[in-house]
Amino acid sequence: MRFVDLIDKKKKGYEHTKEEIQFIIDSLMNGSVEDYQVSAWLMAVYFKGMSLEETANFTKAIIDSGEVIDLSALHEICPHVADKHSTGGVGDKITLILIPLLASCGVPIAKLSGRGLGHTGGTIDKLESIPGFRTDLEIEDLIEKVKNVGLAIGSQTKRLTPADGKLYALRDVTATVDAVPLIASSVVSKKIASGADYVVLDVKYGSGAFLKTAQEAEELANWMVNIADKLGKKFHAVITSMEQPLGRAVGNAVEVIESIDFLKGNMTSDIKELTYEMAALTLVTLNICQNNDEAYNMIDEAISSGSALEFLKRLITSQEGNPLVIDNYRLFAQPKYMRQIFAERDGYVSNVDAYKTAYACKLLGAGREKKTDIIDYSAGVYLNKIYSEHVNKGDVLATLYANDESKLEMAQEFLKTAYTISDYEQSSRALIFKII
Amino acid sequence: MRFVDLIDKKKKGYEHTKEEIQFIIDSLMNGSVEDYQVSAWLMAVYFKGMSLEETANFTKAIIDSGEVIDLSALHEICPHVADKHSTGGVGDKITLILIPLLASCGVPIAKLSGRGLGHTGGTIDKLESIPGFRTDLEIEDLIEKVKNVGLAIGSQTKRLTPADGKLYALRDVTATVDAVPLIASSVVSKKIASGADYVVLDVKYGSGAFLKTAQEAEELANWMVNIADKLGKKFHAVITSMEQPLGRAVGNAVEVIESIDFLKGNMTSDIKELTYEMAALTLVTLNICQNNDEAYNMIDEAISSGSALEFLKRLITSQEGNPLVIDNYRLFAQPKYMRQIFAERDGYVSNVDAYKTAYACKLLGAGREKKTDIIDYSAGVYLNKIYSEHVNKGDVLATLYANDESKLEMAQEFLKTAYTISDYEQSSRALIFKII
Repeated sequence: MRFVDLIDKKKKGYEHTKEEIQFIIDSLMNGSVEDYQVSAWLMAVYFKGMSLEETANFTKAIIDSGEVIDLSALHEICPHVADKHSTGGVGDKITLILIPLLASCGVPIAKLSGRGLGHTGGTIDKLESIPGFRTDLEIEDLIEKVKNVGLAIGSQTKRLTPADGKLYALRDVTATVDAVPLIASSVVSKKIASGADYVVLDVKYGSGAFLKTAQEAEELANWMVNIADKLGKKFHAVITSMEQPLGRAVGNAVEVIESIDFLKGNMTSDIKELTYEMAALTLVTLNICQNNDEAYNMIDEAISSGSALEFLKRLITSQEGNPLVIDNYRLFAQPKYMRQIFAERDGYVSNVDAYKTAYACKLLGAGREKKTDIIDYSAGVYLNKIYSEHVNKGDVLATLYANDESKLEMAQEFLKTAYTISDYEQSSRALIFKII
Repeated sequence: MRFVDLIDKKKKGYEHTKEEIQFIIDSLMNGSVEDYQVSAWLMAVYFKGMSLEETANFTKAIIDSGEVIDLSALHEICPHVADKHSTGGVGDKITLILIPLLASCGVPIAKLSGRGLGHTGGTIDKLESIPGFRTDLEIEDLIEKVKNVGLAIGSQTKRLTPADGKLYALRDVTATVDAVPLIASSVVSKKIASGADYVVLDVKYGSGAFLKTAQEAEELANWMVNIADKLGKKFHAVITSMEQPLGRAVGNAVEVIESIDFLKGNMTSDIKELTYEMAALTLVTLNICQNNDEAYNMIDEAISSGSALEFLKRLITSQEGNPLVIDNYRLFAQPKYMRQIFAERDGYVSNVDAYKTAYACKLLGAGREKKTDIIDYSAGVYLNKIYSEHVNKGDVLATLYANDESKLEMAQEFLKTAYTISDYEQSSRALIFKII
């Protein structure tokens, strides 16, 4: 088999056999193919696609390129181990809330998360804003912690799906990131290699997501659920709007604080809608609850009893973070500067643009462009007013936090443009478009 | 400017500006772009194409990546310097005939030719089958020889269009050779950098050419003529059928012998049709002749007087070859083995498949697959019977030459399958489909 013939085959729109797909990943891993051949193949895939069968084989080959975590030791706690994944959004702190919540309902979670590049940090960065919190766990350590306290969150390791790491590095610099079978196989391979039996996905669309329309999100969601099914795993996907940030906090430490507050019962309605839905899907699918009503009751109870918050405290303690942050938010790194923006008229908030809010956060130093950039955990934005809320002229719309005063000016001006105020009351908007 | 953004732009089907095209070639030449980015861009070009404007800019940038031969010193001989190019066919020895012919008509030719990979050698390989013949001429030497004897043929040098060399090496291993704007820019850039004012192209289609249909050949021809026009150069293209080999000889030395024979007046009709047409186009375009009739007379005279043959002799002598080969073909390297195939029935030859004939030659050792392969100059095929000729059962159809007896068997069987014999007389077929 010659790699150039496989490029030609894909270029002409033919389907690769399972052996050919395996040859592609093997060649990538043993270095027998040059990057310039792989990138040409990736571009051909961008234009000609892959069938579901091909993509499932591709996903399997990526999984087999590295270790697969064996979580069977956790089956003594719960017969099925769950995981969640989000395609990424602005103010998306669902993991920080959902994981302790599910753990408190008896579902063990051994989760690997990414740092990622973006306008704010990834879950791992957010957790590291908790003083002392360690995420560089060896796989064995991760499993041990779940056995002891019911949950653990570690940073992604190169021991899992190394082929995906190589492919992504190449896609990133060759404009071949946005090909649905490649995105789907990347996500699904990582999730399956992480050892979960069941995964609930949050696939986002809108100004603050990389997919712009509900249709694109639905297409990707279908691919992921179907690939997983071909590989014998149960996945669900919740397709959600990311036109506006999730909750009120966008950044790193500010998002952890909002998550803690949520588990204390101070819930923003959109975070509640999504968290409850994803938790209920998990609890019903794993037969812990018979139906959604039962699941919602269990979730209510987990929060009102303080049990979910207790599991977050256990997570922090287990991973060497300072658990006192839960009762004293001043233990988080504090920003030197704070500034506010104000309503210039009376009315109702008709939009807070997710992308613009995220961009303001980036200007404040909350994200990174290059892997080597250092994130300012205390930088971020708090949205004092969100969609549909009434404002009077002069009310505080949002608060910006930063350590560099020079960055505040531009971020402030940018954040102003994120807000739209209308004369009219706003109808409620559905966050969840569809469940697959 | 970031290369990844240019890949993305082309991937989405947008047109590159002149500056972007220049940036692509500059990056390639100064090594600031990685091959894996160039190959992804090439694949995007394969799918999305380039406009004529883009391709002309691309061609110009490739020309500017190296030296451009200045042939103005030859203008004292003739106000316009001509050149020819063929996209490649089986038994295509037109250069060996046309160049001395045109030189004898007063058109100076400083030609660079390729070796190429294929079933038989390229023009340079064929010339090197003449004992002593040297083609590794420096550009200055090439021009000097044309001044002295009216013509010279050298092997392509890396000093010209080095960007094309790099691009081709990458296209070859990434299945991106067959993109019309890339093929057209490669040919046109080399021809313009070679210094000619006027070029006549032979664009071939059929079983023995890389383009299979007349329509594809016409498309490529149009691109090349139009790019040249955009860059201020006059090109013509003759679109010709390559379903059957050109002439009777296919190989290296055998093709040189057929060329010498042609200039002695022993003309196969298809070679005559094409040579006369290309020569007449050149003579009329350069105002050496007023019209085709005048040109045909001049060509007839050049051959019947022995003047064209004399120029071939001068070429051989000037480039250190043994000119005695012209009168003594036994001075060419002789094959150790010879074998014949015979007609199995009476009838008329209705087809001699060009591809199959070429493949038989390759089996005999007349071509190369890798750059490092050594060509056997004496290996090849002589077609005793060609299209439309009558045969009786037992007549010799073709003769095979080789130095390795073991190779003869398979080549012989293969060559048999190239012949089709019909009960009916065959109508004459047009070799030239169109002139652009």
